[in-house]
Amino acid sequence: MDAAVKLELRTEAPLKGRTEGGGPDVSSFTLDNGLDVVVIPDHRVPVATHMVWYRNGSADDPLGQSGIAHFLEHLMFKGTEKHPAGEFSKVVSSLGGQENAFTSFDYTAYFQRIARENLKTMMEFEADRMSNLMLEEAVIAPERDVVLEERRMRVETDPSSQLSEAMAASLFLHHPYGIPIIGWMHEIEKLDRAHALDYYKRFYAPENAILVVAGDVTTDEVRRLADNTYGRVAPHGARPVRFRPREPEPVAARHLTVADPKVEQPTLQRLYLVPSSGTADGRDCHSLDLLAEVIGGGPTSYLYRKLVLERGLAVNAGAWYMASAMEETRFSVYAVPAQGVSLEQLEAALDETLKQMVAEALDFDAIERAKTRLVAESIYSTDSQSSLARIYGSALAIGETIEDVRRWPTEIEAVLKDDLASVAERFLLLRRSVTGYLKSAS
Amino acid sequence: MDAAVKLELRTEAPLKGRTEGGGPDVSSFTLDNGLDVVVIPDHRVPVATHMVWYRNGSADDPLGQSGIAHFLEHLMFKGTEKHPAGEFSKVVSSLGGQENAFTSFDYTAYFQRIARENLKTMMEFEADRMSNLMLEEAVIAPERDVVLEERRMRVETDPSSQLSEAMAASLFLHHPYGIPIIGWMHEIEKLDRAHALDYYKRFYAPENAILVVAGDVTTDEVRRLADNTYGRVAPHGARPVRFRPREPEPVAARHLTVADPKVEQPTLQRLYLVPSSGTADGRDCHSLDLLAEVIGGGPTSYLYRKLVLERGLAVNAGAWYMASAMEETRFSVYAVPAQGVSLEQLEAALDETLKQMVAEALDFDAIERAKTRLVAESIYSTDSQSSLARIYGSALAIGETIEDVRRWPTEIEAVLKDDLASVAERFLLLRRSVTGYLKSAS
Repeated sequence: MDAAVKLELRTEAPLKGRTEGGGPDVSSFTLDNGLDVVVIPDHRVPVATHMVWYRNGSADDPLGQSGIAHFLEHLMFKGTEKHPAGEFSKVVSSLGGQENAFTSFDYTAYFQRIARENLKTMMEFEADRMSNLMLEEAVIAPERDVVLEERRMRVETDPSSQLSEAMAASLFLHHPYGIPIIGWMHEIEKLDRAHALDYYKRFYAPENAILVVAGDVTTDEVRRLADNTYGRVAPHGARPVRFRPREPEPVAARHLTVADPKVEQPTLQRLYLVPSSGTADGRDCHSLDLLAEVIGGGPTSYLYRKLVLERGLAVNAGAWYMASAMEETRFSVYAVPAQGVSLEQLEAALDETLKQMVAEALDFDAIERAKTRLVAESIYSTDSQSSLARIYGSALAIGETIEDVRRWPTEIEAVLKDDLASVAERFLLLRRSVTGYLKSAS
Repeated sequence: MDAAVKLELRTEAPLKGRTEGGGPDVSSFTLDNGLDVVVIPDHRVPVATHMVWYRNGSADDPLGQSGIAHFLEHLMFKGTEKHPAGEFSKVVSSLGGQENAFTSFDYTAYFQRIARENLKTMMEFEADRMSNLMLEEAVIAPERDVVLEERRMRVETDPSSQLSEAMAASLFLHHPYGIPIIGWMHEIEKLDRAHALDYYKRFYAPENAILVVAGDVTTDEVRRLADNTYGRVAPHGARPVRFRPREPEPVAARHLTVADPKVEQPTLQRLYLVPSSGTADGRDCHSLDLLAEVIGGGPTSYLYRKLVLERGLAVNAGAWYMASAMEETRFSVYAVPAQGVSLEQLEAALDETLKQMVAEALDFDAIERAKTRLVAESIYSTDSQSSLARIYGSALAIGETIEDVRRWPTEIEAVLKDDLASVAERFLLLRRSVTGYLKSAS
């Protein structure tokens, strides 16, 4: 599907918004077979967003089978006994709906947006493919070719994606977050029906899934519909175990270069290994979120001001933090050099700027403005039904709670200047980092 | 044991010697339970070298249990029902013998050198611990502390080892050769009795072992003794499966720095990802072996001549190649800067020198001299009984044959200048490399 592996292929920040404290009246319950259900009422228009999230992503791919989570996402469109390949998509489209699916490091999700009266039909189809996928031999090789072509187009021929992959692989010495979501080419090539079947049987279970319905629905209605569709899927007896190794403490600053004749605009990127929502102590995760906004959130941020406006060394500069992750994650700073400025010069300037960050960037006004921007962004995001569904679905899929999501703006407001200085001093260290140059081949 | 994780903790070349074509009259056979036996007659002195090699090393450690192969090596000295902890070692020592054990990426081996009449006793002890290890709860935690202390002493407090670990972790993006043999600290800390027992039951099997006896023995005698000792160990039914993921094609030159106040002598190292004896096509492996000797084998080699003697930029320079490995492996060049020369200057000079290598280093005389040195080295190594045993044991443990070992000098002699140029041009590419700086913290 189109949106697959998006997280990996862009260098901008991932989805940031959360709901403000006074957000929608979200409810949740669990079916007898273990399926978790979240209902997010939104009665403004007579539509519904229907998503199923599975608690397995590329970081759960068995060793040597990188890409299997994403391959399975493709294969989920290849038909069940009841519904041949393509029928589900045709129905969605004939009803004027939209659909999509995506695979990330920690989860895989399937999505439709339809008129509210068609919700039951979506549930029937989605529940059906939760346990009745055919996975015929005949569909495997052609779909694998589709994925291989996807990788060729998105990575092999795109130096910027190659840099992202190389940087992640260097940042994560041990954890599978260093393996591309789409998989390594030579391992995708070997994925076969047996791998897909094993994977499907292991992870596609009601206990491992979260149904999120946002829209013009009531909790009772969703419960009744879910019972009659998903409720009939046999439980596996237990949620599948996901094992993730932990990263060793980083000791060496790393640096790498991708040089390619296709590169027209050189860029400088840096990743730091930092705690995530799943691993951070105390206020660290919220502090990192706010720090990224203060130093790198748009044209009023510290890095942009220093490198672009004051010194004229860059045409763009910023920072982002991938907060939502089960294990240690990425904090990034980046800059695009102005004409005539080398990446080496720009990196030196970036490092000087970062050295002065605690003294210069963390003033009260800048922090307050960043809080306002972040919280406003999270309020705007609640305006979109599908954003809301994604926010709750992704949070639950990585082990957070509805309460975590609701509390997010309050937690951001509570971050103090000292918290920002503290995370900067503990985590934005060169030995925790990988610096990447993208440049034209000489 | 003392020699554990040696391969990892030094930057010099690993054991290079092989036996010349006309070497010892090596014979081999397999016991009914699947144990492979190699006998290497050496009647010069009435001693025998007794080794057991297991076809499992750190690269077979289960995910999240790095260090378990090496931990098991330690635990193998902790006693069986018949022989309490320490008894085996005491007997070896009371007989005037020597013993050791070591863990590498691809194998684990146990070694004794004793008077020939004590061979049977060694076999009894070694066969006993192949299947009767007690692994009592009481020995686990104290021995784990020993290993943790070993890691603290050898790695955590040694910047040069930290650099080696960081470079390997950056060279191998996917393959477990990037994980330290001794394991990551945080994973060693979690190793428990259940892990050790699972590991022992999986890998310590006659089918998975190779007995190598070198010394004043005959094949018939070894066969009879082996039948009466190892022959009684129950087979597991099949050799355990070792699964190794393959590396993706490297796309980005990597660079990293370990800076520590303890560093007195900065060094520059580079690793390239290259084929090994297990993966190389045609003559590539032998060509890389010879190339390392031509460009970096001692004070007459190309790199030493250029960087130390002609330009005075370095006080040492060289190259090595870790040929023996099941999957893709390391080719290294290194240099130690002269007083007042920065690592950056030295790296630039190294790269210039390497660029001219095909044109300047590969002259007929230099190649012939390198062949002579390599082959002579391999002949010298056959003079040592324990080297001989190690050469055959390690070769068989990674899937090579006795014939591969015997043919090695002939294959080295057959390498042509064009072969050297070809491997240099295909494999010594910056995008396949990690460059490491070890320097004093500023």
